[in-house]
Amino acid sequence: MLAHQKTPEIVAAEQRTRAAVDAYLDAWKRGDKQALLALYAEDAEWTDPVGTPPMRGRAAIGEFWDKSHGGGTRMTPQLERVIVCGDEAILLFTMQVRGAKGGGMDLFVCDHFQVDAEGRIRSARAFWDTSGITPVPV
Amino acid sequence: MLAHQKTPEIVAAEQRTRAAVDAYLDAWKRGDKQALLALYAEDAEWTDPVGTPPMRGRAAIGEFWDKSHGGGTRMTPQLERVIVCGDEAILLFTMQVRGAKGGGMDLFVCDHFQVDAEGRIRSARAFWDTSGITPVPV
Repeated sequence: MLAHQKTPEIVAAEQRTRAAVDAYLDAWKRGDKQALLALYAEDAEWTDPVGTPPMRGRAAIGEFWDKSHGGGTRMTPQLERVIVCGDEAILLFTMQVRGAKGGGMDLFVCDHFQVDAEGRIRSARAFWDTSGITPVPV
Repeated sequence: MLAHQKTPEIVAAEQRTRAAVDAYLDAWKRGDKQALLALYAEDAEWTDPVGTPPMRGRAAIGEFWDKSHGGGTRMTPQLERVIVCGDEAILLFTMQVRGAKGGGMDLFVCDHFQVDAEGRIRSARAFWDTSGITPVPV
């Protein structure tokens, strides 16, 4: 939508949405699980990847985080682009997944977010497939 | 989802989804309105951009096409990436929008598709914002 077509309500929603996405990316970059979980609504849904059953609630999202970071794995997102449309956003990034010994993979991800009126993430859905995987040797 | 985790049903759904996205891109490239409309389910929803009310049904989608191509405007998508997840897909592309005199803009778009069991598009939602606009002088 072009700027002159936006109501004050849409502008405010987009500020909340952008803030949530920025904070999400920052929490991943800092490896801060508690900061990440605080961004979600209590009953939020997280799907990763799309096509698998959603996880529901902060506790389940926290378990997903722990699993992703098991065995000393580091997950560092490299931002490519953010698109904000009202209370929804697209985040395009490459997740640098690195094991304790340094190797791993780069994974291109398209996240789709829906943010509630309090600026909390109520739905996050991660789109990725094997075409977005680049192995990184140790 | 990794290949070894996919059931035959998921593999079949992904083939249908990918075929629909490929045909969608091809119809835009050839400027073929009828081919494009034939890809949608009769009661499909099309939202462009996300945050505005959806158009419902092939007739409304056809009107959108006519409006987009008014005054000799050409719309040529340049593919960046496709991500397929079951019966959903993400299509990343730059739409080259050119007026009759040659100038216009490049617009980065993230389309989200949902495809039905017959391989027809039942929902298409276009995410773009002003950050994705690059003016192109005549």
